Amino acid sequence: MRYDIAIIGSGPAGLAASINARIRNKNILVFGSSDMSSKLVKAPSIDNYLGIESLSGKELKDKFKSHIESMDIKIIEKRVNNVYSMGEHFTIVSGDDMYEATTVVMATGVEYGKMLKGEEEYLGKGVGYCATCDAMLYRNKIVAIIGYNHEAEEEANFLSEIASKVYYIPMYKLESQLNDDITIIEDRPTEIKGDRLANKLVLKNQELYVEGIFVIKDSVSPKYMVPGVEVEGPHIKCDKDMNTNIEGLYVAGDCAGKPYQYLKSAGQGQIAVSSAISYLDKKRIREKMMSSEVKSL
Amino acid sequence: MRYDIAIIGSGPAGLAASINARIRNKNILVFGSSDMSSKLVKAPSIDNYLGIESLSGKELKDKFKSHIESMDIKIIEKRVNNVYSMGEHFTIVSGDDMYEATTVVMATGVEYGKMLKGEEEYLGKGVGYCATCDAMLYRNKIVAIIGYNHEAEEEANFLSEIASKVYYIPMYKLESQLNDDITIIEDRPTEIKGDRLANKLVLKNQELYVEGIFVIKDSVSPKYMVPGVEVEGPHIKCDKDMNTNIEGLYVAGDCAGKPYQYLKSAGQGQIAVSSAISYLDKKRIREKMMSSEVKSL
Ligand SMILES: Cc1cc2nc3c(=O)[nH]c(=O)nc-3n(C[C@H](O)[C@H](O)[C@H](O)COP(=O)(O)OP(=O)(O)OC[C@H]3O[C@@H](n4cnc5c(N)ncnc54)[C@H](O)[C@@H]3O)c2cc1C
Ligand SMILES: Cc1cc2nc3c(=O)[nH]c(=O)nc-3n(C[C@H](O)[C@H](O)[C@H](O)COP(=O)(O)OP(=O)(O)OC[C@H]3O[C@@H](n4cnc5c(N)ncnc54)[C@H](O)[C@@H]3O)c2cc1C
Repeated sequence: MRYDIAIIGSGPAGLAASINARIRNKNILVFGSSDMSSKLVKAPSIDNYLGIESLSGKELKDKFKSHIESMDIKIIEKRVNNVYSMGEHFTIVSGDDMYEATTVVMATGVEYGKMLKGEEEYLGKGVGYCATCDAMLYRNKIVAIIGYNHEAEEEANFLSEIASKVYYIPMYKLESQLNDDITIIEDRPTEIKGDRLANKLVLKNQELYVEGIFVIKDSVSPKYMVPGVEVEGPHIKCDKDMNTNIEGLYVAGDCAGKPYQYLKSAGQGQIAVSSAISYLDKKRIREKMMSSEVKSL
Repeated sequence: MRYDIAIIGSGPAGLAASINARIRNKNILVFGSSDMSSKLVKAPSIDNYLGIESLSGKELKDKFKSHIESMDIKIIEKRVNNVYSMGEHFTIVSGDDMYEATTVVMATGVEYGKMLKGEEEYLGKGVGYCATCDAMLYRNKIVAIIGYNHEAEEEANFLSEIASKVYYIPMYKLESQLNDDITIIEDRPTEIKGDRLANKLVLKNQELYVEGIFVIKDSVSPKYMVPGVEVEGPHIKCDKDMNTNIEGLYVAGDCAGKPYQYLKSAGQGQIAVSSAISYLDKKRIREKMMSSEVKSL
């Protein structure tokens, strides 16, 4: 099945895109998490979302949740690893699953954290962002996972069934339980070292010998996620209609640039969907005209 | 007195700009009307403002009003006639009064052009300007679209999937293809009639019984209001940060371009203020450096 619009991210940008696409009767896919956005949930008090006075992030999240549920919008709780432009459509890869959509709205937010020293250098050479995708490469190997969120725990658990040893370095307050054979390291990572491949994780108080390192962040630099997309630093380059350099690919929210704010992100989600729909309409008319030309030959 | 930011317009764009400027401790002027925006008040039902489910325009207006009042923001109920760029600041003229501000956010919406007889009277009562916004109200109903431009065709195509019958009255030379089930009427509309709700479109040579009428127009240009501002048709030209061609002048909402929607307008109000504040900051630093250079001479 080919969807009209795939929306990657369930923060304010992705959710605004979703409700607007649904109102316009489009066939949509929404990827994200059940708590919508960790940045939303974490905000102590929000005063600058016009029409909604002084709410906590959790309360605003509940309002968003109720809104999308009233429209029967379901969030697919999966991380998207890659989005490939195939010319006439996009292929969206999440672990072993693939999806097809005619247009894509990127609403993945930005990772505020800086990259670790060595992270970019060894990316794809022992350093990865998706443990479940690359797990098979680490059968019987020693792996470290630097986890920025709870979702990273699932990846650690999964990996511990395959790797010979898993270190887990939580970058947040760890509460839930991990599989017994995972070693939890409460320390701050500072650098990734290696030769041709990464083989050492340097932390403040120790060094770990490893054969693979996964950094599981809330979001990943979009240039690794969407091959060919033009970026400006951590942001996807776009114009005021949220068009990117790839036809059919739109962007909204923090990953489209500053300011990093809810209302701005949501407004851009609405614009992105509006642009996606214009594109879908034009494409449909073009295809109709081409098929009637073919018939009349 | 010179204000930091003058905001012209009290629709969603101007109000979002106001609350964000106030949170950032800026000295602001807000021009508009006490009912915020006639386009807001007239909307029958709003579903696409993320976080706020199914409200009438009046109810949404009340939420906006309460939000700005909680921040002690006052609206000056005056029409601005002109905004003049004076180099280091702007002069805002309203009737016999003049105001000074270092930056200006234009959030004046768009004028939808000359009105049909009965159009204003039935606006929000069977007459609308955005078919895609209100489509759900016209499921299985008979609808007429008076289209002034090609974009109106998209709306007609969309509506034809939902309404039981769509009449399309092109006010220009129709060239492209419409969905087969749309009836094209080549005639000149003269009046909208009805009882409590609009139910008749009177044309030069016929009358159509309808349950809804959409008028999709171009709008009037703001270039008469701000001498020197670059426009694109009815809109002020801007980039994705809401900068115009005039330093210190920003734009947000309908007058910044399509789509014409609340959430998009509000989001842009937030971006415009963020850009205005960056400019104020840079200007202040520049002036500080210049005055210390002067002192050290
Ligand atoms: C503590 C804190 C307080 C804040 N307070 C305010 C405030 O008061 N007012 C304000 O306006 N802003 C505030 N912000 C900023 C605000 O949180 C962000 O601007 C906003 O959340 C951005 O929305 P977004 O939709 O672009 O991205 P995000 O909210 O970051 O959402 C991104 C979404 O994409 C998902 N995602 C990312 N990558 C993938 C992938 N590969 N596959 C699937 N899903 C993916 C994530 O899980 C998430 O659901 C605050 C931020 C923080 C951290
Ligand atoms: C009947 C109807 C239903 C709609 N339904 C929806 C919907 O369901 N969802 C949706 O997203 N959108 C809807 N819209 C569109 C929505 O109303 C607009 O996109 C939105 O109001 C634009 O906000 P804005 O702040 O840019 O401008 P406006 O809301 O038009 O506000 C402009 C403000 O500027 C003021 N102003 C203008 N010129 C001057 C001047 N010279 N001096 C001082 N003040 C000035 C006006 O008085 C007004 O306060 C609807 C519109 C209509 C007419």
